[in-house]
Amino acid sequence: MTQFDLLIQNCHVLLPDFTVLPNAAIGIKDSRIALIEAEPSDTGTYEAREILDGDGKLAMPGFVDCHTHAAQQLLRGSVVDELPMVWTRILVPFESNLTPEDVYKGALLFCLENLKAGTTTFADAGGPFMDMVARATVETGIRGVITRSTMDTGSDIPDGMKESTADAIRGTEQLYKDWDNSGEGRVRIWFSLRQAMTSTPALMEAVAGRSKELGTGVHIHLAEHLAEVAHCLTNYKMRPTQWFDHFGLLGPNLIAAHSVRLSDQEVLLMAERGANPVHCPQSNLGNHGFSKTPLFMALGVNVALGTDGAATTRLNLFEPMRVLKYAMQARHGVEINDPLTLPALDVLKMATQGGAKAVMMEKEIGRLEVGYKADIILLDINKPHLSPTAHLPKTIVTAAGPDDVVDVIVNGRLLVHDGEFLLMDEDQIRRDAGQAMLSVGRRANLSLESPYLD
Amino acid sequence: MTQFDLLIQNCHVLLPDFTVLPNAAIGIKDSRIALIEAEPSDTGTYEAREILDGDGKLAMPGFVDCHTHAAQQLLRGSVVDELPMVWTRILVPFESNLTPEDVYKGALLFCLENLKAGTTTFADAGGPFMDMVARATVETGIRGVITRSTMDTGSDIPDGMKESTADAIRGTEQLYKDWDNSGEGRVRIWFSLRQAMTSTPALMEAVAGRSKELGTGVHIHLAEHLAEVAHCLTNYKMRPTQWFDHFGLLGPNLIAAHSVRLSDQEVLLMAERGANPVHCPQSNLGNHGFSKTPLFMALGVNVALGTDGAATTRLNLFEPMRVLKYAMQARHGVEINDPLTLPALDVLKMATQGGAKAVMMEKEIGRLEVGYKADIILLDINKPHLSPTAHLPKTIVTAAGPDDVVDVIVNGRLLVHDGEFLLMDEDQIRRDAGQAMLSVGRRANLSLESPYLD
Repeated sequence: MTQFDLLIQNCHVLLPDFTVLPNAAIGIKDSRIALIEAEPSDTGTYEAREILDGDGKLAMPGFVDCHTHAAQQLLRGSVVDELPMVWTRILVPFESNLTPEDVYKGALLFCLENLKAGTTTFADAGGPFMDMVARATVETGIRGVITRSTMDTGSDIPDGMKESTADAIRGTEQLYKDWDNSGEGRVRIWFSLRQAMTSTPALMEAVAGRSKELGTGVHIHLAEHLAEVAHCLTNYKMRPTQWFDHFGLLGPNLIAAHSVRLSDQEVLLMAERGANPVHCPQSNLGNHGFSKTPLFMALGVNVALGTDGAATTRLNLFEPMRVLKYAMQARHGVEINDPLTLPALDVLKMATQGGAKAVMMEKEIGRLEVGYKADIILLDINKPHLSPTAHLPKTIVTAAGPDDVVDVIVNGRLLVHDGEFLLMDEDQIRRDAGQAMLSVGRRANLSLESPYLD
Repeated sequence: MTQFDLLIQNCHVLLPDFTVLPNAAIGIKDSRIALIEAEPSDTGTYEAREILDGDGKLAMPGFVDCHTHAAQQLLRGSVVDELPMVWTRILVPFESNLTPEDVYKGALLFCLENLKAGTTTFADAGGPFMDMVARATVETGIRGVITRSTMDTGSDIPDGMKESTADAIRGTEQLYKDWDNSGEGRVRIWFSLRQAMTSTPALMEAVAGRSKELGTGVHIHLAEHLAEVAHCLTNYKMRPTQWFDHFGLLGPNLIAAHSVRLSDQEVLLMAERGANPVHCPQSNLGNHGFSKTPLFMALGVNVALGTDGAATTRLNLFEPMRVLKYAMQARHGVEINDPLTLPALDVLKMATQGGAKAVMMEKEIGRLEVGYKADIILLDINKPHLSPTAHLPKTIVTAAGPDDVVDVIVNGRLLVHDGEFLLMDEDQIRRDAGQAMLSVGRRANLSLESPYLD
């Protein structure tokens, strides 16, 4: 008889094909899923050190948020409905006044918010003091793919936020040396390029080369703004995707955040190279426009989802799934009478298996299957907005929310139980973050119009 | 010293101008707000029969969902990603197999889901056995503007769902007689026309006349589908808005659900007549396209929001606020570089004051102000996705959700406390609705592919 570290009893299980196995048991051993099966009537068949009651709950893979910014957690409420230039007026003063302690406190809140909303893995596009984000990741038990954002050129960037090409590479290599594979392997360090306009060709070449040597991925912002497209056309006679491809950066190890302002030819190029577009529906719709997701899907491209951070939204992938589905139906589906422009189960796949592939862990996370890492969330489905339903998985996509997540397991460890974070004091994390928001806000001279800091 | 029925102490209060009054008290007497003021240090100043602790909570007006269908509650999960004709394949068999008991059980669940999500008033567009919806409204304590959907023509409509013009009018008049002003005045009965294609000119004329005589409103589906526009152009040489106006139906007592497929001229006509467009962002984007909301706003038109029922979404107005904002930014804002296409506080106004005006109760509900009905919700703001924030009201719009609602008061009565419905057994409501879903599903031969009925 197998002795499990943790056994979930009598739950519904969302299988990788998005059907539901009712009345099942999940056994976890050495951080991995060791058993998923219909529960026998004699429940004494399994032994475990810890047992979790799954009655009235659906077990599903934790979400993978493939584009986010932990260091922007303390901007919440500061950039909603702000006029341009948000970058020069708010983001630059904010980022340049952050201390390592601010970033650490913000990152703890970021990890807490993510975990409570069912996100078990995040991919951060980079910011200042990313060692502090790695530290918070290790301490809170979440899984993170962390990068150091690098900028070595650009007329809009203040000197203090730029570094030399060599320093940019050295900085990421140091972060890699210090933190890659830390936290029982939960932390991965990747390379990052902020965007085409702030990267010299030398930096792009170096990042392409070193990421291949180290076997890491690269996280970029791609085809986000019209200004970026104009910049690449003006300076390189290529569109951004072609420019990145010129350096060999377009491949399966690339997270291409946003991927909105693309020609059809660029979509085809990304498909050919196997790069991963990561849509951030709220951020895209608010600032950039409509993606060409149905074409990506028709070409079999792996699409993933991101929140783009907490400055203007809530960290969770429930709402981005729906927002992308609605937006694609309205933009691409209505005029050709296609109700299946982006089916519910396809966006559920983006948020789980798609994200796992984008962070190069499709053999480790993103599905509940024996041998996979136990990154599992349990949803309370006995709620008036979820039960009864004629189709549970579709209703999870159309009606479930971050607060339905009651238990969260990452790497086999129970981190959230009955909606409470087990490792640290939640109120303390919120209050510390509040103090940090206040102090960076004062230093950066940002207005806190109607603050609520508890 | 005033003796209150209910006193909320030490809460934050969202004022009608969308600023926040911290550390305040709200006194309720005889179903109305009798006091809102900054709390004195000596809390013994107020006396009340019942006291609610507001610490760490924001009190705000309950949401007004201006277009929904209680009778479609039992369709949850049945119409997501279904191919045409959903109407003939699913809706007609469903509706024609409903019993009054099914509708009652579904309506109880509908009221429960609404209340727990912070919706304190709903406007129902009509379905079968609306007396059962009125009954559930009275019993659950919610406020409802209920109509009887009337159809007296239309080649797509089975005979069993049509009635004579006279019966249609008589039916609503009977419902009005039986239920208007019931439940301490919480129930209002209005007239309803399903849409232009299923209404004879005689019915439209009669509804326009009788609604004016009785002082009620009229609830219609307007400019929802292209087929409806084509029908009106073909048969009447007018667009739908002009056709409704021809009968004098376009006025301040009109809820025009959807209001999507409108020419600019029709938008101007609605503005001139003072009709209320009610957008259902998820339903509109999924099926109908983009509304012209910025033009409505520029013309000073009162816009309200609706969910369109639980068949494909969750009943709550938090997400519709955001979805409409994102969609309008992407559709109308991005190309003209307008970050203020639909500011956060404008959508918050739609969901509260806008809804109140659309249901002709702007002097009664939709704002926290002395003399107004006490329809109040309290949000727990000490959560990692809401606190800290630099701007609490904007963060409510961008990041709060239905589960943040912990207390709900309607007409001065506490109905939900600490997230629990006080008047009935929630699990019993869900299970009864599950049995009704199963039985109507069997009778109508609808497939329940992956049912979850608890």
